Amino acid sequence: MPTVVRNTPRTDLEIVDGLARAGVATVHEAQGRTGLLRGDIRPIFRPARVGGNALTCEVAPGDNWSIHIAVEQAQPGDLLVVTPTSPCDDGYVGDLLAESLQAHGVRGVVIDAGIRDVASLTDMGFPVWSKAISAQGTVKETPGNVQTPITCAGAYIRPGDVIVADDDGVVVVRREQAATVLEAAEARQANEAAKRKRLAEGELGLDIYAMRERLAGRGVRYVDYPDSS
Amino acid sequence: MPTVVRNTPRTDLEIVDGLARAGVATVHEAQGRTGLLRGDIRPIFRPARVGGNALTCEVAPGDNWSIHIAVEQAQPGDLLVVTPTSPCDDGYVGDLLAESLQAHGVRGVVIDAGIRDVASLTDMGFPVWSKAISAQGTVKETPGNVQTPITCAGAYIRPGDVIVADDDGVVVVRREQAATVLEAAEARQANEAAKRKRLAEGELGLDIYAMRERLAGRGVRYVDYPDSS
Amino acid sequence: MPTVVRNTPRTDLEIVDGLARAGVATVHEAQGRTGLLRGDIRPIFRPARVGGNALTCEVAPGDNWSIHIAVEQAQPGDLLVVTPTSPCDDGYVGDLLAESLQAHGVRGVVIDAGIRDVASLTDMGFPVWSKAISAQGTVKETPGNVQTPITCAGAYIRPGDVIVADDDGVVVVRREQAATVLEAAEARQANEAAKRKRLAEGELGLDIYAMRERLAGRGVRYVDYPDSS
Amino acid sequence: MPTVVRNTPRTDLEIVDGLARAGVATVHEAQGRTGLLRGDIRPIFRPARVGGNALTCEVAPGDNWSIHIAVEQAQPGDLLVVTPTSPCDDGYVGDLLAESLQAHGVRGVVIDAGIRDVASLTDMGFPVWSKAISAQGTVKETPGNVQTPITCAGAYIRPGDVIVADDDGVVVVRREQAATVLEAAEARQANEAAKRKRLAEGELGLDIYAMRERLAGRGVRYVDYPDSS
Amino acid sequence: MPTVVRNTPRTDLEIVDGLARAGVATVHEAQGRTGLLRGDIRPIFRPARVGGNALTCEVAPGDNWSIHIAVEQAQPGDLLVVTPTSPCDDGYVGDLLAESLQAHGVRGVVIDAGIRDVASLTDMGFPVWSKAISAQGTVKETPGNVQTPITCAGAYIRPGDVIVADDDGVVVVRREQAATVLEAAEARQANEAAKRKRLAEGELGLDIYAMRERLAGRGVRYVDYPDSS
Amino acid sequence: MPTVVRNTPRTDLEIVDGLARAGVATVHEAQGRTGLLRGDIRPIFRPARVGGNALTCEVAPGDNWSIHIAVEQAQPGDLLVVTPTSPCDDGYVGDLLAESLQAHGVRGVVIDAGIRDVASLTDMGFPVWSKAISAQGTVKETPGNVQTPITCAGAYIRPGDVIVADDDGVVVVRREQAATVLEAAEARQANEAAKRKRLAEGELGLDIYAMRERLAGRGVRYVDYPDSS
Repeated sequence: MPTVVRNTPRTDLEIVDGLARAGVATVHEAQGRTGLLRGDIRPIFRPARVGGNALTCEVAPGDNWSIHIAVEQAQPGDLLVVTPTSPCDDGYVGDLLAESLQAHGVRGVVIDAGIRDVASLTDMGFPVWSKAISAQGTVKETPGNVQTPITCAGAYIRPGDVIVADDDGVVVVRREQAATVLEAAEARQANEAAKRKRLAEGELGLDIYAMRERLAGRGVRYVDYPDSS
Repeated sequence: MPTVVRNTPRTDLEIVDGLARAGVATVHEAQGRTGLLRGDIRPIFRPARVGGNALTCEVAPGDNWSIHIAVEQAQPGDLLVVTPTSPCDDGYVGDLLAESLQAHGVRGVVIDAGIRDVASLTDMGFPVWSKAISAQGTVKETPGNVQTPITCAGAYIRPGDVIVADDDGVVVVRREQAATVLEAAEARQANEAAKRKRLAEGELGLDIYAMRERLAGRGVRYVDYPDSS
Repeated sequence: MPTVVRNTPRTDLEIVDGLARAGVATVHEAQGRTGLLRGDIRPIFRPARVGGNALTCEVAPGDNWSIHIAVEQAQPGDLLVVTPTSPCDDGYVGDLLAESLQAHGVRGVVIDAGIRDVASLTDMGFPVWSKAISAQGTVKETPGNVQTPITCAGAYIRPGDVIVADDDGVVVVRREQAATVLEAAEARQANEAAKRKRLAEGELGLDIYAMRERLAGRGVRYVDYPDSS
Repeated sequence: MPTVVRNTPRTDLEIVDGLARAGVATVHEAQGRTGLLRGDIRPIFRPARVGGNALTCEVAPGDNWSIHIAVEQAQPGDLLVVTPTSPCDDGYVGDLLAESLQAHGVRGVVIDAGIRDVASLTDMGFPVWSKAISAQGTVKETPGNVQTPITCAGAYIRPGDVIVADDDGVVVVRREQAATVLEAAEARQANEAAKRKRLAEGELGLDIYAMRERLAGRGVRYVDYPDSS
Repeated sequence: MPTVVRNTPRTDLEIVDGLARAGVATVHEAQGRTGLLRGDIRPIFRPARVGGNALTCEVAPGDNWSIHIAVEQAQPGDLLVVTPTSPCDDGYVGDLLAESLQAHGVRGVVIDAGIRDVASLTDMGFPVWSKAISAQGTVKETPGNVQTPITCAGAYIRPGDVIVADDDGVVVVRREQAATVLEAAEARQANEAAKRKRLAEGELGLDIYAMRERLAGRGVRYVDYPDSS
Repeated sequence: MPTVVRNTPRTDLEIVDGLARAGVATVHEAQGRTGLLRGDIRPIFRPARVGGNALTCEVAPGDNWSIHIAVEQAQPGDLLVVTPTSPCDDGYVGDLLAESLQAHGVRGVVIDAGIRDVASLTDMGFPVWSKAISAQGTVKETPGNVQTPITCAGAYIRPGDVIVADDDGVVVVRREQAATVLEAAEARQANEAAKRKRLAEGELGLDIYAMRERLAGRGVRYVDYPDSS
């Protein structure tokens, strides 16, 4: 029986926005290299970067009824996350639905399926990460769950978990861990800025990361050409 | 025996241009959700949108001789549609051939194979929808059919059928139905503009499309978190 | 045992730069249609065009230690070529490593694996051709060979072979043949410029390439619509 | 509007069976190397070989209603050919439907989508060529066309065209050309049997096909190792 | 920090075995069409059918250390479920590890990665569902989590959830719902056996499922050839 | 200019056969985890296992002329290795050519392209590892190199290098290293037989490989359910 869950918890938008500033790669590292969605979920335009509270939605193949139901549950700062119950590349979201989502404060869409009207969505600056682009529209015959836990593109996502998406991909952060992960991410950013400066000045990673002794331990040998056969 | 058909029928360019203005997604809906090509046929630059009369062409794998034959059959407003007799990602069209096509009034290319010189083609503003980009050129040893019906990227296409291509994909419209489909497409566009305005003002699709009663009929239940297990 | 080969030969940068100007498609033709890498190795931004001496590097899956070793072997004008010992889409190079490579004169990266921080790399104008984009970073546990011959994306590449990469793909030129190939490539360019002018004026390829007699020999028949079935 | 066409023409089963005996590769050659379906349509068990009259059917994504409609139109000797209106890997046919098809004389299924219950279908000896195997079943909400011309896996197929399917793939033969193609296919078979005998005795294809003089004309040179660089 | 969880709950093996008898397609329907893993997870030999308690395991790319840890946690009736932290096709399990798993009562493996020694595993009758077959072995440098919840091939799986795998694919059943789902699955089986008998006797699905009136409601029209255009 | 190299070196067949007995996975490990071909090169029937001297061959897309040339260069114990100059899935080898190859002592085929007549090849027991199965045959218009070094499926292969192929994939061994690799492979086999016996008796890999201390060093923690969150 399709279920719509109301009044699900959400993560504070200051934390969400901090995580978005850190970006997907940094957040992924900061939470122990977990939470990435499959890499074939790609942005329809670049550059793009956004963070939001997961507004989750299951759809039947070729049927976007659930998304209309989800709009009513949206709150400003949400990011719509859509997964089909079986693989489908149809264009579930077009410019009309994007207009509606944007009007309700939804910041973008992550979908393990297809999207259409990408020229319009690009003009609107409405970011979408999808598996496919397809002009094939959908029907409204079979409703699915809204705001229940789902797996999308290989990741388990609950309503109100934080989604960060940028040119590198998409990552989910558990809402209970969002504050901690933000802290770790900001620490990494500071550390990386310092290292980047040293690397730009020509210092070698071998030295910065103290890898020379470990290299010897792994039996790496240096030889001169042409004695390398 | 390879055949070149001359004096094939074409669709009036006013109709062709009207369909191009409507775009692929709208035309697809307007003709009963039919006629899309496979979704892995993608534009080499975006945004791009074009309509044209299909100038059809079959090529052997790794061999673009037929395309040179096709140029002679071209008329202004044509769109070259190329299908290989067996799957091949080679770059069948480069800047020289594009120059030649453009000189004869061809508006772009749809090809279920590869393309090359994409930087030049982008500079020329010559739009191409292809399955692949490949620097691998082709030879001229085996001619194929020109201006016969073909299947390209899963769609059956006859000379003079209308091809519309944009960022969402590619669709074919039968030449006998082009005028009717244009009418339906323009009606959809008007209707969508009105709906888009209402959605932008925050009205819900659930109300605009009168979906609430049907939702109940499908057994959708609304619950409050955390009673959602 | 992982091996790092020092003082490998390189190709003169004037030759390298000449090949880059000619571009991948022309170089590929000029050396007898050989040397292309697999076509799924794509640039992270377009347009992009670069030539360089191959700085070769083997990496373990999910491990970029070798690349840090490679930076120390880099010379201005090099292009880093990375191949994993088993298929892996992880993001082996991010902005820190790109900064380091650029500081040592490396002009770009060709990698049969993934890349990350693509927004930063684009801002830096640091070109990368990769099989994937992935926020998934790597560890530094298992070193591999540096500056030994490798196969990358289906091509055999030795240190100091010339790599040319542009929007169409990537090609390798043997260092012993680089001067000869450059000469042939420049001859092709001159020839193509002349042909392009004639084609732009509407002359047919059928005439320029003297294909009409050969067409007859292949049994091509011309018929008029509708007698084409 | 979904349409079911009754009383469509069929091809004589003696011709159909003759084509099946010749097999897909031979039939494909015999009709001028045309008519193959995409190569990712594969048999669920091997060996398998069947010929039949195309019983065509369009299905909505995730919806197999049309197939139930098609069963009523079936005649002994038919082969069901199914194409989805947008890409879908769901398992459209399972053991119940196969039982029903078999009861009505349908010899097998070719489907550009998924199939399920493959262990049962194998036990039944009911051959299927499909793009995918998937336990995901389908609903019965949206009917589509039955016995109208369709494109399936890249080929244009009309009701009553002959379908031949074996371990190598699937080919369609126009019903008007079936008798002629059968004749050509049987001639090829006789010719091939003779050649196969000579090749088995060690005679070289270079001699049987008189390729030696043509080799010289193409500039092929023979050298002895190690003078081959 | 990698974690190994001991004494996780398991599902009664009578229930597990009942679900295995029902098979993947039936179980999937019986639990509301949920729980399927991605369809590219395929058995290395057919026919194969097994049910078991999920013994979960996360592995680093190219590294199977976690699986050795998992063996110690195994109990008879378990099914090993392995997911890599980033995509990798390496052969994580070969005949040695299979021998070890079998010795500890593990009934098979489901892995979103590669497998090797498939000839030996087939001889042993040890069933494996994998994304790839690859001779590329793995190292033992980086341990991961064992018996924690994971997502594998797009599905969320907890230790002790029931895994059913057969020729059609793989499905997960929540351990709390296993008994209920078994009941529903057995009801479906009885129902399907009855229907299958009627279909085998030639009765039409259109009649059995009472679809004729609904067809009319959807506007389906029946026409006679050739009035079908 | 296409080149055919005669009298290329070969590896002693006793060594070749020893490597075949060891199998692909063991050989790959024995030579430092190198030499595997891409994993999408799969056998057309299973089980299959063969070793042979590489008889190398480059083919144009859709053209198998080179293979006819290669037959004349064949010696008993050879294994034909075919690579196309651009990606192509056509069926380059069918039953006639297989008959000819077998008559000249060729033990099988490895091809980074397609194959056809797989039912016949299976009946003949003639093993083939290919990227695709396709009924689409080829022409004989463009000869390519025979017995020159090639890259096939991502591996660099010279005439007379040893090819071992089995159900797990394909590996190449340099002819200069074949004897040494055989020795290492046989040592591995003995070692694995001993370990397999211990594992079959229930001994844990954690103990056999002395991994417990290293586990602690990596910070692995053991906890009891439900304290695992």
